[in-house]
Amino acid sequence: MNSVKQFNDYRSKMNEKILTADNLIIKRLFNLDTNAYQEGTLSVKSKELIGLSCSLVLRCDDCVKYHLGKCLELGFTTAEVHEAMGVATLVGGTIVIPHLRKAFEYWEELLNV
Amino acid sequence: MNSVKQFNDYRSKMNEKILTADNLIIKRLFNLDTNAYQEGTLSVKSKELIGLSCSLVLRCDDCVKYHLGKCLELGFTTAEVHEAMGVATLVGGTIVIPHLRKAFEYWEELLNV
Amino acid sequence: MNSVKQFNDYRSKMNEKILTADNLIIKRLFNLDTNAYQEGTLSVKSKELIGLSCSLVLRCDDCVKYHLGKCLELGFTTAEVHEAMGVATLVGGTIVIPHLRKAFEYWEELLNV
Amino acid sequence: MNSVKQFNDYRSKMNEKILTADNLIIKRLFNLDTNAYQEGTLSVKSKELIGLSCSLVLRCDDCVKYHLGKCLELGFTTAEVHEAMGVATLVGGTIVIPHLRKAFEYWEELLNV
Amino acid sequence: MNSVKQFNDYRSKMNEKILTADNLIIKRLFNLDTNAYQEGTLSVKSKELIGLSCSLVLRCDDCVKYHLGKCLELGFTTAEVHEAMGVATLVGGTIVIPHLRKAFEYWEELLNV
Amino acid sequence: MNSVKQFNDYRSKMNEKILTADNLIIKRLFNLDTNAYQEGTLSVKSKELIGLSCSLVLRCDDCVKYHLGKCLELGFTTAEVHEAMGVATLVGGTIVIPHLRKAFEYWEELLNV
Repeated sequence: MNSVKQFNDYRSKMNEKILTADNLIIKRLFNLDTNAYQEGTLSVKSKELIGLSCSLVLRCDDCVKYHLGKCLELGFTTAEVHEAMGVATLVGGTIVIPHLRKAFEYWEELLNV
Repeated sequence: MNSVKQFNDYRSKMNEKILTADNLIIKRLFNLDTNAYQEGTLSVKSKELIGLSCSLVLRCDDCVKYHLGKCLELGFTTAEVHEAMGVATLVGGTIVIPHLRKAFEYWEELLNV
Repeated sequence: MNSVKQFNDYRSKMNEKILTADNLIIKRLFNLDTNAYQEGTLSVKSKELIGLSCSLVLRCDDCVKYHLGKCLELGFTTAEVHEAMGVATLVGGTIVIPHLRKAFEYWEELLNV
Repeated sequence: MNSVKQFNDYRSKMNEKILTADNLIIKRLFNLDTNAYQEGTLSVKSKELIGLSCSLVLRCDDCVKYHLGKCLELGFTTAEVHEAMGVATLVGGTIVIPHLRKAFEYWEELLNV
Repeated sequence: MNSVKQFNDYRSKMNEKILTADNLIIKRLFNLDTNAYQEGTLSVKSKELIGLSCSLVLRCDDCVKYHLGKCLELGFTTAEVHEAMGVATLVGGTIVIPHLRKAFEYWEELLNV
Repeated sequence: MNSVKQFNDYRSKMNEKILTADNLIIKRLFNLDTNAYQEGTLSVKSKELIGLSCSLVLRCDDCVKYHLGKCLELGFTTAEVHEAMGVATLVGGTIVIPHLRKAFEYWEELLNV
């Protein structure tokens, strides 16, 4: 199984378990998370850039993978994604570089799906 | 080997190596860590809630696993653990969600041991 | 004006401005934040312990002040608050100590109001 | 002196001292920082959104102030800035809220200059 | 009163209050903190470099001030301190720069005492 | 394949891909990163101690591995590396301990290469 499918399957399976658990705080937070990236005053693309770059400076590999998947769906080019990640890496410092490596690897896998 | 045993075995093996290394700062820190979760002005259960939620907002998967194991031993219900993690995820933001997934998965594994 | 009143007034004034601004994501997040600390499967006191300790390990002075105010209202003793903050400081490391100093100072001010 | 001018003056004064100190690593990092926000594959506006939201999730008040100043210069509306900060606060959690308060206050001051 | 004396006085006053409070976890952590920077396998100077740079990447202004004071006592030159802070800023990213400004300002104040 | 070789190979492969991507911000940041650890006002050994300890408090396992590899090359003894990591763990708190376990494990693997 390729790593993109593996990531998405695990994410879906666990999200389902989490929502089934029926904790009100978590359910509302998940609901808010879904709505927050919808078109609003800012475009969906601007919001994804925010999601991707915040995920990278906070060094959350899974969050980066999720937003990379969305960025591809929205038609971002490889050069645009690299530049967004370049700015984020500068903000977050060289400590971000190992996460940048994984992000580059996952983006390549997304392109090959 | 199941993931609970794997986690505990690795943790024990490495703790032993670390303590054998005989660095004074590390030994005293480990000793303090053990004592801090003992019954005191706050109950052991209150302290575990603090340990679990701090581990989650700081996004340390292994720390979360350790405290989940302790929470089960102390008789916390699944609903209580979920609620504590819900509050922590709200404090720490959606960046915590991937770690919440792993925490839910591990709690399930603990229940199945 | 004492520092407790100053903190609460600024907090109220800005919260009002933020909610007036009418951004949907922010409004829902504030609403969720209010509800999350209500009595649930966990007691209000347990939730405040979580809020206080997470605020301290994340080194957010204003969040610590807010939860200290709540802890006093809920009847936590000074020794209990100190112990919760002790565990959190151990988890978060000596980097937390300057925030612990401010927390001790603010707790003293709360007691003198 | 208003807080916008105070912020900018302190920032300029200290940047000058830092660059005069002539440390090669720091000078090159400052230089890279300046260039990174120039028009590139991504627009200047997209880069400022990244800068603002990363600063907020990393809870750096001064960084937020700087990028808010840039956002105003670039013609972002209040609603757009609020939405970007809303997404970032959701990603970073309620721990970000005290920094959101300061950001709202500073944006208001920028508008009144 | 100059800012160096103000910093040291506040620190001493609050440390005394914290230790008087007699919480065992906190007292032992403070004790360990004091001992950790003593001469050991690594020299006192090497340990201060570690303390300073860790404080800077974790963006704790008060911790940076404390270690800058120690660095001056130990005979570090301005160029050495700048270089250590340069490496740390690179590791931690441009988000560290506002804290670097305060560090440069405080170092200057230390030299003028 | 042993874990040291695996780590180095992945790191080299991905660095090459990242640099081939030819994003200017990233290339300059990588270049600055390489130069920053060269002999300067501070010795190479002092800089590696900074790199190692900052990596540990920021809890970046791959960064820790990289700097451990360099520390071995530079002739640091096991006791010195342990002490540097002890100080860093104290600064960063018990949340760092799981990363300390991995660091001890990797150092042992480095010694066995």
